[in-house]
Amino acid sequence: MKAASSSGRGVPRSSSLPRVVSRPQVVVVGSAARRSAMNHLPVLLWTLFSSVREDVCYLPPELRAEIRGYRPLVHSILSEFVAGAESGSTYSDLAYFADRFGHRVVGSASLEDAIDHLLSVLRHAGLDHVAAEPVHTPVWSRGPEKATVVSPRVLEMDVLGLGGSVSTPPAGITARVVVVESFEELETRRHEVNGTIVLFRPKWRDYKSYVVYRERGPSMAARYGAVATLVRSAAPYSLYTPHTGKLSYDDDAPRIPAAAVTVEDADFLARVVGRGEEVKVRLEMSNSHTNGTSRNVVADITGTAHPGQYVILGAHTDSWDVGQGVMDDAGGVFIAVKALSYLRKRGLRPRRTLRAVLWTSEENGLVGAAEFVRRHRDEMDNVSLAMESDTGTFAPYGLTTSSENNLTQCILREVLSLMAPIGATTLELSVRGSDVDKLHALGVPVSTLLNRNERYFHYHHTRADTMSLMSSRDLDLCAGFWAAVGYVFADLRDMLPR
Amino acid sequence: MKAASSSGRGVPRSSSLPRVVSRPQVVVVGSAARRSAMNHLPVLLWTLFSSVREDVCYLPPELRAEIRGYRPLVHSILSEFVAGAESGSTYSDLAYFADRFGHRVVGSASLEDAIDHLLSVLRHAGLDHVAAEPVHTPVWSRGPEKATVVSPRVLEMDVLGLGGSVSTPPAGITARVVVVESFEELETRRHEVNGTIVLFRPKWRDYKSYVVYRERGPSMAARYGAVATLVRSAAPYSLYTPHTGKLSYDDDAPRIPAAAVTVEDADFLARVVGRGEEVKVRLEMSNSHTNGTSRNVVADITGTAHPGQYVILGAHTDSWDVGQGVMDDAGGVFIAVKALSYLRKRGLRPRRTLRAVLWTSEENGLVGAAEFVRRHRDEMDNVSLAMESDTGTFAPYGLTTSSENNLTQCILREVLSLMAPIGATTLELSVRGSDVDKLHALGVPVSTLLNRNERYFHYHHTRADTMSLMSSRDLDLCAGFWAAVGYVFADLRDMLPR
Repeated sequence: MKAASSSGRGVPRSSSLPRVVSRPQVVVVGSAARRSAMNHLPVLLWTLFSSVREDVCYLPPELRAEIRGYRPLVHSILSEFVAGAESGSTYSDLAYFADRFGHRVVGSASLEDAIDHLLSVLRHAGLDHVAAEPVHTPVWSRGPEKATVVSPRVLEMDVLGLGGSVSTPPAGITARVVVVESFEELETRRHEVNGTIVLFRPKWRDYKSYVVYRERGPSMAARYGAVATLVRSAAPYSLYTPHTGKLSYDDDAPRIPAAAVTVEDADFLARVVGRGEEVKVRLEMSNSHTNGTSRNVVADITGTAHPGQYVILGAHTDSWDVGQGVMDDAGGVFIAVKALSYLRKRGLRPRRTLRAVLWTSEENGLVGAAEFVRRHRDEMDNVSLAMESDTGTFAPYGLTTSSENNLTQCILREVLSLMAPIGATTLELSVRGSDVDKLHALGVPVSTLLNRNERYFHYHHTRADTMSLMSSRDLDLCAGFWAAVGYVFADLRDMLPR
Repeated sequence: MKAASSSGRGVPRSSSLPRVVSRPQVVVVGSAARRSAMNHLPVLLWTLFSSVREDVCYLPPELRAEIRGYRPLVHSILSEFVAGAESGSTYSDLAYFADRFGHRVVGSASLEDAIDHLLSVLRHAGLDHVAAEPVHTPVWSRGPEKATVVSPRVLEMDVLGLGGSVSTPPAGITARVVVVESFEELETRRHEVNGTIVLFRPKWRDYKSYVVYRERGPSMAARYGAVATLVRSAAPYSLYTPHTGKLSYDDDAPRIPAAAVTVEDADFLARVVGRGEEVKVRLEMSNSHTNGTSRNVVADITGTAHPGQYVILGAHTDSWDVGQGVMDDAGGVFIAVKALSYLRKRGLRPRRTLRAVLWTSEENGLVGAAEFVRRHRDEMDNVSLAMESDTGTFAPYGLTTSSENNLTQCILREVLSLMAPIGATTLELSVRGSDVDKLHALGVPVSTLLNRNERYFHYHHTRADTMSLMSSRDLDLCAGFWAAVGYVFADLRDMLPR
């Protein structure tokens, strides 16, 4: 998952996840959803009065019957992933991929080798159309980097420079540290900042409230004369773990170098400064900024009745340059690859085209997704649903939907009710996504995978994003879910209403 | 806490902690305790039939009355730490110490500077006797170290060499990796080991079952011709976190270098080897082995009636050379220092001498404790109780006791019942300790702090052992508890029976 924009889109929730329930439920989230709540009174009433739920959705009886007709097929798909021939295969394929290629930062040979591997896997699976589509992208490469407390005592800190950061001069930047917890505090203390290194140390509440400091902090501090910034890593729990991620320089501010420090070092610096001691840090970073070409991957099971209509299963191939990038987002890639490969192997060809889209250069700012919608602009009106997995592939419990259309929500709920055997029946109203935001902006209904990702931000953008955190069973559940919902949405007689 | 011996002593339990109860309880743990269970039938019956608990312990009425007489004092001590003038002071003193000196590995200037600071704090507190006692100790210093997977692809691993490890040749050791999960597997596959690097990858169950691989693994593998060993870090949860600790070479085996890898890298190596791929690793380590002098610290509140009798509050000053060494064991040091300083400030002088002992060179093998018992041999018969805190200073819930004496257990229980306001009333039969094992071996009754240290092995011997994991409130509870029980045991009319 990339650095989410400060608008809050692309931000998964790390807490207060609704519970799995055995019947479909609608959870209203987000201001857009709230604005439209009055349009969905029947849905809300259904939520409140579940005893009448089958009547309030106003699904035409034939449509309900059509959806319920998928039950035997869905259950057979799920059981093959949970306890049948597919069990364990997603994990083993993903582990091989992760161990062979490692992390896959944009501009690296490992990313392009990994994309070649995925193309090979998809072609070997016998899909109808497998293509690599070139994407021109900025390339940022981390050079040697070092952050040292030089007074009141010498201490090397483990840091990760932020993606896109400029370099320091070769001798580094040595300056006094000013610690602020918020932009409000920066504003109040703006006259203290000139010539200093500003440490942003927001309290961890959630990713959304933190990420603005990583993304915008450097420019905000530079306007007041800061010479560099540090930011507390984005984590609810740390074992001296730095978290990287992209920054976004404003055009009207000086570009200063920026790095993430661990929670522990942020606390240390705040304590020492809080005692009234002058703390100086030397930051040395040597990064390169170039441009390059990567590739989106598109792979289809061509639809039997409506080959020009699409349901998309999306994820991104690139990662940050630490760990194995499996949670973010090779897991998402492999449940899409597995879903299509499995359906092809079973000869399950839906009415419209089921398409895997594996975007590149997500972490650099949805670059691959932007190129995808540019290249496929004419198809966007014919995308029934674009699904994305980019907030982990832990135990799945449902889908989000960006749709404010009551009928679409009811169809989604009815389809999710088929997923009761694995408890993935929750529908949450949310426009949160990452690459699919580019499709959502063009009116495409988008859904993202809801999964038990409470520990997502323990690992996000760290060296700890490795196979050790993945569960074979959870991957089976996600891949089976993806195959089942992907097939059903692609096979329904009609596209989802917009 | 040091590397525990394979006998299991010195090993705190990381799971199945008994719950705090509002009345004292005895939890029987360990084979020694089980052997003596029949001697303690009344105690066991008391546990089973708590309604008669006040009668089965056979505490002489005057002794029970004597102990209960401390209740107002104990409650006033506890309340001063929890909500009074002492609240927060242990945390702030400890934080200053940790931030100023950092980790304190034996042989470092930071350890000796830290000991000077402690001497100064204790003298400033006006204690009756504050002494530094020299300790000759082996000194092991970590040099540059590096472990690189060189095939099937190049990958730098974050490792921590094990304390006491010999160096590699300057060019390093490059060899094929053999992965074993147990000594039994090593034995079965001993003919595959010659010339290889053996990775011990025991499943994490608890520290006791793991630590034998760290301590004994190098010699065990060297006997079959291994040229180096790696060991999976000792952790139930990892964020790419290497854990160091001491190894113990056998005299009759070649000495080969050894390092700990992260859980994630151990998993990675096992997966790749498990696929039948040949994995080669290059290990480069450059350590030094010398000897040096450090110091134990002894500080007393001299007893009014029995100055030659002692109750000891113990902990160790040294740490490993990563993090801040606060959980292991500056927290233990500061609750002892705080307890004595507080009692002195309040003018509370017990009948026998209350002594803080801050051992050095614990991590190198209880070197300071061995010197302490050598130097204080004649006093050992007059130590009523030696208490130790070396498994964390999280929320306290009671004490262990090494004593199999029924009366002693009943006295301890009665004293712990006074701690009901903070829930620290549990008595657990256990000989587990670390430095106090040296006193236990000479017949001294020893007790260790029971605290809610379920996450102890997340941090143990890692860069994450910093103030960020400490809780000011928990430190208040531990320090108040230490002051209260230390005072009561030192002030009781009689020594504890042995």
